[in-house]
Amino acid sequence: MKIICDKKHISQKVTICQKAINNKSSNDILKCFLIQAKNGVVKLISYDLDMAIETTIEAQIIKEGVIAVNARLFGDIVRKLPDTLIEIEIDLQNNIFIKYENSKFEIKGHSPDEFPKLPEVKKNNLHSISQNVLKNMIKQTVFAISQDSTKQILMGELLEITNNKVSLVAIDGYRLAVRSYSINKNFDDIKIIIPGKNLNDLNSLLSTEGVVEIGFDDKNAIFIFDNIKMIIRLLEGDFIDYKKLLPREHNTKIKVNTKDFLNSIERASLLSQSDKNNLIKLSIREKIVAITSNTDKGNVYEEVQISLEGDYLDIAFNSRYLIEGLRNIESEYIYLEFTTNINPCIIKPIEDIEYNYLLLPVRITSN
Amino acid sequence: MKIICDKKHISQKVTICQKAINNKSSNDILKCFLIQAKNGVVKLISYDLDMAIETTIEAQIIKEGVIAVNARLFGDIVRKLPDTLIEIEIDLQNNIFIKYENSKFEIKGHSPDEFPKLPEVKKNNLHSISQNVLKNMIKQTVFAISQDSTKQILMGELLEITNNKVSLVAIDGYRLAVRSYSINKNFDDIKIIIPGKNLNDLNSLLSTEGVVEIGFDDKNAIFIFDNIKMIIRLLEGDFIDYKKLLPREHNTKIKVNTKDFLNSIERASLLSQSDKNNLIKLSIREKIVAITSNTDKGNVYEEVQISLEGDYLDIAFNSRYLIEGLRNIESEYIYLEFTTNINPCIIKPIEDIEYNYLLLPVRITSN
Repeated sequence: MKIICDKKHISQKVTICQKAINNKSSNDILKCFLIQAKNGVVKLISYDLDMAIETTIEAQIIKEGVIAVNARLFGDIVRKLPDTLIEIEIDLQNNIFIKYENSKFEIKGHSPDEFPKLPEVKKNNLHSISQNVLKNMIKQTVFAISQDSTKQILMGELLEITNNKVSLVAIDGYRLAVRSYSINKNFDDIKIIIPGKNLNDLNSLLSTEGVVEIGFDDKNAIFIFDNIKMIIRLLEGDFIDYKKLLPREHNTKIKVNTKDFLNSIERASLLSQSDKNNLIKLSIREKIVAITSNTDKGNVYEEVQISLEGDYLDIAFNSRYLIEGLRNIESEYIYLEFTTNINPCIIKPIEDIEYNYLLLPVRITSN
Repeated sequence: MKIICDKKHISQKVTICQKAINNKSSNDILKCFLIQAKNGVVKLISYDLDMAIETTIEAQIIKEGVIAVNARLFGDIVRKLPDTLIEIEIDLQNNIFIKYENSKFEIKGHSPDEFPKLPEVKKNNLHSISQNVLKNMIKQTVFAISQDSTKQILMGELLEITNNKVSLVAIDGYRLAVRSYSINKNFDDIKIIIPGKNLNDLNSLLSTEGVVEIGFDDKNAIFIFDNIKMIIRLLEGDFIDYKKLLPREHNTKIKVNTKDFLNSIERASLLSQSDKNNLIKLSIREKIVAITSNTDKGNVYEEVQISLEGDYLDIAFNSRYLIEGLRNIESEYIYLEFTTNINPCIIKPIEDIEYNYLLLPVRITSN
């Protein structure tokens, strides 16, 4: 193999592909990129067995060929090269020569035969969706996945297509975030579970413009956008029937300014951060919600203006769960709907009916 | 005590004073700010026994008084408050009430009697120097202090005033950085040693405009600037006679573009980073210095253009020491002067005769 390409360009592709490198693996080949010059196209490929990324490199091919190379070392070198054309050549012993201006690197490559074969995903029946929409769907839900590795399924998000609506759902046992988006094409109904970790990777690569093509089979999801092909292995199992968890009724409903409410809760939580439960109390009255926290560090009392429909209520929450939900809402005002102080509360952005964030209260003894 | 002040303003002062808080101390009072409203002035003070910082807070004093308060908790609260006027009040039990808009915090303070007394430094005979000059002097030398806690003295920098010149000097046994600055006033000659850690703190607070007043006694140095008074306890002992270490002669002198040389060395060092010595070799010839590194990861060959005076030379260095020195030089071109490949090399910016960076080579067996 011998190719000539632009440093800046290959450097960008290296950064993208590094997301599917497993530097902690005991298997050296999973720490490698595959560089492949074949049929007039140069590809940079990474695959950690959970996720694969394939990108195309614009390059002049002098001689076709293929090589595996340690991703960190290759990445460190490529990023440090001067902004110029670089030549990458391999010999029969898998040595890699990287030449630029009057200088050169010679590093050891690995046999490409050891590199794992990427899963094949059927690419007919692809769905098309705006990258920005998918990006926001991930951002507004992925923080609520479980961090508990004994609950593998909940470390992923449900991606559901039904009734001309695509939804992403995350649940960790204490809260639930669901983000839907109406699609006007007729898609087949599906339900798959995608690991949250890989959704974060996808999110970091999606841009705010253009579309992403999405496809699925039983084992994998594929995302194609901006010259990037990402294949993610799905989690196997059944997701919680989340729709059953969403309360249908409420006895108390308040409208509050998102930012004011968030700021007050963030301040109130300052005293409770050493506490395991991050406990804060809300006292909902006629025009005011009082947010209080009493810990060994001291006491805090915060007042935020609200409009109230329904009953007064005293209820306690883990402030971290409230804060994470509120931080991901862009709407200026939100509704909070409550049934009792032992039932979940649901947060709905006023300007965005397709987002629901539900969280369980912490039981408190009345005092 | 009862004062009213602006959130943004006190928040800035809190950030400044936090530099002299020792959160690792087992003594709670060293984790505290002292807030003092006395004689019409409100001061925020911190003191970790090595360094003290005193700042003035613009505030309306309703009632004079003094209190100590946990710096991290007070800082976290103040930073999170809305941008408005806040009222800070204490009661006789050292409770602190922080009120703003319709909300309030109540936290426990500490008795101010426990707070250590700040050292007194005579403030006659202060030297005045540009903040920007002092900032650069610190930046260009402090990275070369020793990290070895068995060499206490070398964890500090020599500050020397002699012959109308002020110099900062750092040595760690492998290299020496000396930065001088000509002053046209007649100062008394002095030699003091200031801990590098505290110079870094000072550097982070100095701005690029205005002057700083500097004073010394046997035990402490004082720096007064921008409404900040910083007192640093000096290190006791004798500093190495660094002037003896600077070579007077050379057999080889090259002129090289700083950036090109730095970039090539950074690249060449990529393969040697796992190696303890970060070894790179320079081969100085007529118009070229070749920079090479051969490790188990591979080989690299870099060429940089030079002008040469004197003999050809092969010499090896720890690349980290070269890189750190070169990164702190702003001059476009530098001279490197060598005697032999076992004697120190000295780096001099062409446009800045008052900076010298000297480093020891690594002995290599010829091959």
